[in-house]
Amino acid sequence: MADCDNQEESGMKHYCGIFGAVAVEPWPTQLDLPHILTLGLLGLQHRGQESAGIITTTGEEGQFKQKKGMGLVEQIFRNEDMIKLNGNMGIAHNRYSTMGGSELLNIQPFVVNTIHGKIAIAHNGEIVNAAELRHQLLKSGVGLSTDSDSELLIQLLTHPPSCGEPDGANWINRIKAMMKVAMLSYSLLIMYKDVVYAVRDPFGNRPLCIGKILPPSSFISVDNCNEKDVDAYVVSSESCSFHAIGAKYYRDILPGEIIEISKKGIKSCGIVSRPNGKLPAFCIFEYVYFARADTVFESQMVYTARQRCGEQLAIEAPVEADIVSTVPESATPSAVEYARKLGLPYTEIFSKNRYIGRTFIQPTTRLRQLGVAKKFGPLTDNFAGKRIVLVDDSIVRGNTMQALIKLLKKYGAKEVHVRVASPPIKYPCYMGINIPTKEELIANRISLQDLPDHLCADSVKYLTIEGLVKAIQEGITTTGQPIGHCTACLSGDYPVKLDW
Amino acid sequence: MADCDNQEESGMKHYCGIFGAVAVEPWPTQLDLPHILTLGLLGLQHRGQESAGIITTTGEEGQFKQKKGMGLVEQIFRNEDMIKLNGNMGIAHNRYSTMGGSELLNIQPFVVNTIHGKIAIAHNGEIVNAAELRHQLLKSGVGLSTDSDSELLIQLLTHPPSCGEPDGANWINRIKAMMKVAMLSYSLLIMYKDVVYAVRDPFGNRPLCIGKILPPSSFISVDNCNEKDVDAYVVSSESCSFHAIGAKYYRDILPGEIIEISKKGIKSCGIVSRPNGKLPAFCIFEYVYFARADTVFESQMVYTARQRCGEQLAIEAPVEADIVSTVPESATPSAVEYARKLGLPYTEIFSKNRYIGRTFIQPTTRLRQLGVAKKFGPLTDNFAGKRIVLVDDSIVRGNTMQALIKLLKKYGAKEVHVRVASPPIKYPCYMGINIPTKEELIANRISLQDLPDHLCADSVKYLTIEGLVKAIQEGITTTGQPIGHCTACLSGDYPVKLDW
Amino acid sequence: MADCDNQEESGMKHYCGIFGAVAVEPWPTQLDLPHILTLGLLGLQHRGQESAGIITTTGEEGQFKQKKGMGLVEQIFRNEDMIKLNGNMGIAHNRYSTMGGSELLNIQPFVVNTIHGKIAIAHNGEIVNAAELRHQLLKSGVGLSTDSDSELLIQLLTHPPSCGEPDGANWINRIKAMMKVAMLSYSLLIMYKDVVYAVRDPFGNRPLCIGKILPPSSFISVDNCNEKDVDAYVVSSESCSFHAIGAKYYRDILPGEIIEISKKGIKSCGIVSRPNGKLPAFCIFEYVYFARADTVFESQMVYTARQRCGEQLAIEAPVEADIVSTVPESATPSAVEYARKLGLPYTEIFSKNRYIGRTFIQPTTRLRQLGVAKKFGPLTDNFAGKRIVLVDDSIVRGNTMQALIKLLKKYGAKEVHVRVASPPIKYPCYMGINIPTKEELIANRISLQDLPDHLCADSVKYLTIEGLVKAIQEGITTTGQPIGHCTACLSGDYPVKLDW
Amino acid sequence: MADCDNQEESGMKHYCGIFGAVAVEPWPTQLDLPHILTLGLLGLQHRGQESAGIITTTGEEGQFKQKKGMGLVEQIFRNEDMIKLNGNMGIAHNRYSTMGGSELLNIQPFVVNTIHGKIAIAHNGEIVNAAELRHQLLKSGVGLSTDSDSELLIQLLTHPPSCGEPDGANWINRIKAMMKVAMLSYSLLIMYKDVVYAVRDPFGNRPLCIGKILPPSSFISVDNCNEKDVDAYVVSSESCSFHAIGAKYYRDILPGEIIEISKKGIKSCGIVSRPNGKLPAFCIFEYVYFARADTVFESQMVYTARQRCGEQLAIEAPVEADIVSTVPESATPSAVEYARKLGLPYTEIFSKNRYIGRTFIQPTTRLRQLGVAKKFGPLTDNFAGKRIVLVDDSIVRGNTMQALIKLLKKYGAKEVHVRVASPPIKYPCYMGINIPTKEELIANRISLQDLPDHLCADSVKYLTIEGLVKAIQEGITTTGQPIGHCTACLSGDYPVKLDW
Repeated sequence: MADCDNQEESGMKHYCGIFGAVAVEPWPTQLDLPHILTLGLLGLQHRGQESAGIITTTGEEGQFKQKKGMGLVEQIFRNEDMIKLNGNMGIAHNRYSTMGGSELLNIQPFVVNTIHGKIAIAHNGEIVNAAELRHQLLKSGVGLSTDSDSELLIQLLTHPPSCGEPDGANWINRIKAMMKVAMLSYSLLIMYKDVVYAVRDPFGNRPLCIGKILPPSSFISVDNCNEKDVDAYVVSSESCSFHAIGAKYYRDILPGEIIEISKKGIKSCGIVSRPNGKLPAFCIFEYVYFARADTVFESQMVYTARQRCGEQLAIEAPVEADIVSTVPESATPSAVEYARKLGLPYTEIFSKNRYIGRTFIQPTTRLRQLGVAKKFGPLTDNFAGKRIVLVDDSIVRGNTMQALIKLLKKYGAKEVHVRVASPPIKYPCYMGINIPTKEELIANRISLQDLPDHLCADSVKYLTIEGLVKAIQEGITTTGQPIGHCTACLSGDYPVKLDW
Repeated sequence: MADCDNQEESGMKHYCGIFGAVAVEPWPTQLDLPHILTLGLLGLQHRGQESAGIITTTGEEGQFKQKKGMGLVEQIFRNEDMIKLNGNMGIAHNRYSTMGGSELLNIQPFVVNTIHGKIAIAHNGEIVNAAELRHQLLKSGVGLSTDSDSELLIQLLTHPPSCGEPDGANWINRIKAMMKVAMLSYSLLIMYKDVVYAVRDPFGNRPLCIGKILPPSSFISVDNCNEKDVDAYVVSSESCSFHAIGAKYYRDILPGEIIEISKKGIKSCGIVSRPNGKLPAFCIFEYVYFARADTVFESQMVYTARQRCGEQLAIEAPVEADIVSTVPESATPSAVEYARKLGLPYTEIFSKNRYIGRTFIQPTTRLRQLGVAKKFGPLTDNFAGKRIVLVDDSIVRGNTMQALIKLLKKYGAKEVHVRVASPPIKYPCYMGINIPTKEELIANRISLQDLPDHLCADSVKYLTIEGLVKAIQEGITTTGQPIGHCTACLSGDYPVKLDW
Repeated sequence: MADCDNQEESGMKHYCGIFGAVAVEPWPTQLDLPHILTLGLLGLQHRGQESAGIITTTGEEGQFKQKKGMGLVEQIFRNEDMIKLNGNMGIAHNRYSTMGGSELLNIQPFVVNTIHGKIAIAHNGEIVNAAELRHQLLKSGVGLSTDSDSELLIQLLTHPPSCGEPDGANWINRIKAMMKVAMLSYSLLIMYKDVVYAVRDPFGNRPLCIGKILPPSSFISVDNCNEKDVDAYVVSSESCSFHAIGAKYYRDILPGEIIEISKKGIKSCGIVSRPNGKLPAFCIFEYVYFARADTVFESQMVYTARQRCGEQLAIEAPVEADIVSTVPESATPSAVEYARKLGLPYTEIFSKNRYIGRTFIQPTTRLRQLGVAKKFGPLTDNFAGKRIVLVDDSIVRGNTMQALIKLLKKYGAKEVHVRVASPPIKYPCYMGINIPTKEELIANRISLQDLPDHLCADSVKYLTIEGLVKAIQEGITTTGQPIGHCTACLSGDYPVKLDW
Repeated sequence: MADCDNQEESGMKHYCGIFGAVAVEPWPTQLDLPHILTLGLLGLQHRGQESAGIITTTGEEGQFKQKKGMGLVEQIFRNEDMIKLNGNMGIAHNRYSTMGGSELLNIQPFVVNTIHGKIAIAHNGEIVNAAELRHQLLKSGVGLSTDSDSELLIQLLTHPPSCGEPDGANWINRIKAMMKVAMLSYSLLIMYKDVVYAVRDPFGNRPLCIGKILPPSSFISVDNCNEKDVDAYVVSSESCSFHAIGAKYYRDILPGEIIEISKKGIKSCGIVSRPNGKLPAFCIFEYVYFARADTVFESQMVYTARQRCGEQLAIEAPVEADIVSTVPESATPSAVEYARKLGLPYTEIFSKNRYIGRTFIQPTTRLRQLGVAKKFGPLTDNFAGKRIVLVDDSIVRGNTMQALIKLLKKYGAKEVHVRVASPPIKYPCYMGINIPTKEELIANRISLQDLPDHLCADSVKYLTIEGLVKAIQEGITTTGQPIGHCTACLSGDYPVKLDW
């Protein structure tokens, strides 16, 4: 999708990214931890741009320091915050809020007082059975002050688990008890005293991975290094945030796994299993569109997975043309590979205006038709008189694609063949992704047959679901773990049945 | 106290003011309710200047609309908010935050989801046994996300009361159950569906009164009017907020009383009693300093009560002098009356700079000594060569008073005799007033005997506790109700025993 | 006038206040000069609240440092500015802008490059023959980028004077040449290299006075002190700004006088004379309303002059009544003295809400009628059933007065007799004061005979022009100087003839 | 250059972009002119991001409406401004300010009062002999309130030209007179009453071109269309801003040409010639780096010119390697073409973080070394173990390039060969481009021989000056006009001699 940030055109939106860091002993650490957390958030900025927060602690007296704000990471955090947030460990959160307006109240991470002291919590995802769980809590007399899943998770954690010690600070037991009633979707960071717990839901729907910060001069391999060689452990929604802090990707947290991170190192505290016979359900759109291209999931680089999608698309839907091009820029790897596979020249045809955000003034009708041109300037000489294959990663509402094709034709394109490196989006997501209503999705409005006419294209072809799954899964080299991806928005096949 | 807003000098501070309004049927009301609420808050601005919030509802579907913000009422609420907040009833809150920093999260009123739907709540006061009540709640597994008493009250309300229907939406029973465990100090507004409950704690420590908005042309007496003649009922911390909305003071809510206000009118739902033998404990400093002079408490105007304090002060502590003057402006009624009683001329001796707030830049030492002069310009010709009686309502730290006297002497005052229309402040308040630490209170630092020297005054006299209580109580004409005032900050005599 | 800041009701408005300070050698000075300038501005805040600026210099290399901003003085200047603005001399300006909107461009003082280096300039007033002078400049090819008189003055100063050295940096000659073509109205501060020139127009229409900062421990009389005893010289629109910086009033700058202030001290550089037979024309409304009560003009305290107006009013317009009161608070000295002269008791009848600024949301009709009550709370018990004399300093549009009287009557006043301590305002001002249009002035709309009915008052009487002039002038004790005041807005008698 | 916006690393900076639009009669126009101007600015945002302004007029009464602000175009202009700015013609300006701080005062376009009425002016460039011209003006008695060239141009325009009618509103004569004393560098828009003059300096150093807005359904060729077919004429620094408003590029304004645009159409008012024998001096860096790739200069698309630079670079500096890549993203066309010419595969190796601006917090030393990684995430799998040709468009300080190469090597690159599609930058620019000081330019610090070692590269080669000029000029197809480009920053060969 043309990542056109224009309100009218906005497609699928992510809710957030989470990041945590714990310095290895001796404490107080020599590392600049607040900075590491800020750079971590900066590397996850594409997952949420409306607000961000960081909470740190020295890990000694249960005191938390925090800074939160509306806007982009670099607007929120200042040098003085780096001093104020000084500590040995911390968690952080980027948020995309759906409801507009000032929602300072909702900026994560949250801090909560419990009978055992304060905990801080950051989460990415959406609880599919939230309504039912909320009802149970309210019935027990708890007043809930927000509609957020985070508050729900917190109360599920603080209420005595039905199993285990009824009143103890055994957070692992509490987390497990919570995971059994809330199956998906979440990746979580929970900070308590001198420990951070990193948790992925049993289906592994949202990503979460571990990295190690090694000494700058170190030649140690990240896999074999002794914990004494590690300066800090970091956890992140995506490994792309590791580069800027000198951390190396270690491994994904497994579906259902609880990892405890302390100054002593990391420890896996077990895995909460899925219902019998269920495979993991890692969101396939993380590969297609959400993640940054330099992120590694399941041991493969996202860029490479996207290249394979382009290759598979060339196999499934070749076309005769003069040039192959891309809607910049998440579709570029697919486009380059599509071109290579078919032996066609790859050329840029749009110059993108980087200075356009989301709140631009509404133009009059005449100018509105040209809307897309304010973001994508046509490189006329590169395509005039030519047959173009225009590769995109996905199509949501289709408005931008239609406008782009009209623009190309106006400036002299001979033919425009649309090739989409993923299947049609048809179903809503209840697991943390904001998809337009079913009625707005072009795949539900226009038949495949009528689509070329509707988009003013000469042909339109999508990748098949099978083709997508094959392209994604064949690059996964991790062994011994079951592999599975959620394709619900494409297939209607949800990981769990919902009764609504 | 010289209401000098300078940080260094700030004296006793109030935490807040609350205001509510319910239009009488037929609904939708023709009244501009959001405006009424805003003007109500504006009239209570002296009780809290750091943030404010309004929540309204049409009363039909349990939906709440809100606007909150940092700053003064007129900075927060705009014309567009008046449209957005349109409704038939609402509650509002002014807040003075002690902790600085952006505390948007803590701005009242709060909205909470309960099993029976949403409630909104606004409160003024401080729960004396909060620590114990919090511990009980945390133990039961509730996670508390703030340190505020408001959240505590909410959870006490939403948890099934030990008596009464265990699961019903019988809010009156729930409120009563809550009042039995939390004796003081609070005045509360609770909005649920189409009703507002107005509650005063059993000791009546914080004020709360009812007013009626009658048709503009009405000649009906407020006491005898039929409910059909009333356009709306309003509740407010102080009756001074009624003038700007055309409401008339009807009566105080009694200590321990719960009032239900709906489109049908007002209904008293009973009184929760105090422990045996206990008198009410209405904060006597509301009369001395906090309240606005045009407010009516217990059927008497605050201005008049202050005049009687000045008269009593003249009886207890007369002095020979040329002029009587005031530290503007809450001490003015006492000063004028002190002068009248002794037959001395009353004259202004300070011109007050109205444009000084709380965050002025810190001057260097040399200029700091002149600090008070940036707020109080000396009217030299009015006092040079004269013997002055300087009347103030109270003295907290004494720094401002000392500086004022030095200023007067520098500009030629012959003698300065300080007369304070209330007794020395010696003890902390646990009921919603922010008093400097015991060590900072001048009455604990300097003996009465050394005080004139310390303040550079020629004599210093305070009103006695007995004199103050007499001056306040002799103007109360309501009958049939026990009368009692909290003088804890003066006498150390707290309404309830605290075990710390 | 009831200084009601409500837009609808705003009366006469001042344009600005100016302040300057020069430390006496040795340089660099030990004084905190930026602070002195800020406190100086703070003391002139009543003359302009929309923006302010400070420019300082070390006086050594012609470099200027500045800080300007929209809003109140204490919102604009921060501790870091105090460091940044460090210097040996500086000038400052408070501005009231008439045109709303962000006028950052127009905030004084201005800095201008000239062939001799940079000059900075701050001015208060309005040039009566500006249109003619602008035309001459534009005709000579100068492009003017603003409509401001300040830019006009600057270009008049930088253009070679028709007399004197044609190209030299003889600023005194340039200033004199400028004064000959621009007769009034202005008080000016001009900073150039290591000197500040302080200038008052030949008619002395706007005030400007000199003060001396003496060592804190000094017992030296300000009149006889040696220049070695002075730490700094200050100039200000009003002497009330001297108190907070420990400066003592020395003397007014005379009409037409140019004062040069440097580290060596002050020097009078001569007086530009008025046309033959013309008296000075110091704005009489500075006494009546604009100035702060603790300011000294022409050797008398403004408060005292206002008292004499009240006394004169009692002589001219006595009335039988129960109490005398005031519209707080510039009318208070007149009211107190009116009461004393007639032997009537003086009582407060309004409690003023201090938290109301200028931009409050517009209420609906029903609430609008109550508008005045949001600013003035009635102290009912003080006046119900009584005959009131309500003293005000002036009446402009009359709307506030009408509303106040209605409020008093609604709350039980038996009679209300309005007494105004100045004559009716009937004519526009072209000398720096913003008066509503002629048609809006109540004195031009309603005959004196109909006025009581219109205002709902039982009687209305004004002070006569003769009475006002007498009350003001009889307190002036300076000798050897001609005395004269501008009463143009009352009498239509302008200091110079204008051809429009 | 890696357009790394980090302060430390910032390279060459442009000062601004200008845009104008005039609707063709009949007036009032049906076009949404304020929107056209805003979109025009948005398309020039890459030329200046610190402030912007728009001034419009109905063209009938000489009244101007304006909106200016700090920040990006879409932050400054709102829907309400579109209504407020309604008019028939207007000019607009984007600004990059060098001096930081709030410079609201300096936001263009400027409005100036002249004896003939108001003019508005917007300009791009820097006057090389500004110091001399300023001195002449100051000497004549004009006070200049800014250091800007714009104010200088304005005063040169408003002062009577030495030739021509001494006092008339003959702006063309005035502009010509100004151009004769100020030879370069500027492109100018001047709005007066119902006309906009568009001017390019005699050397054509800064770009300026004309576009036509034709009816949406029009099939008319832009070159042959009758003026009746045109809805509006637009002028812009770059034609890339035409796409979003539906305008078509018509032609460049010629060096020295004055174009008059009115509701009647466009008219060339003649050309001010260069000194004998001088060629035009259009800034060659507009092609290399400043312009957006979809802009057309001298009839060729910038993208295509950059491709030819890449091709020429392949001819001049081939190398054996596995992959060719780019520093995203202005270098991409050169890199793609370099790869094609040598038959090597083109691959992306960096994923760019789009959310980084200019003011990010300063990291500690350890993290600072990783600085570049927060903006450029390595696509490790694409380059590990490979020999890379890294193509950039230019190198300024070299810090970013060094950091990128270190990053590539750290993540496994076998060899890195740097190829720069322009020659070394060695000299300052006095014509509107902000270049670091001579000492900071890497080409002046490190010899070509030592450069690979310094950058940690395996080889480093630049394009020659001849190669660059050839690559740029061979695509120019316009005939009959002399062709010439300024290469002063590369060759030291300035268009005019400067005596400093």
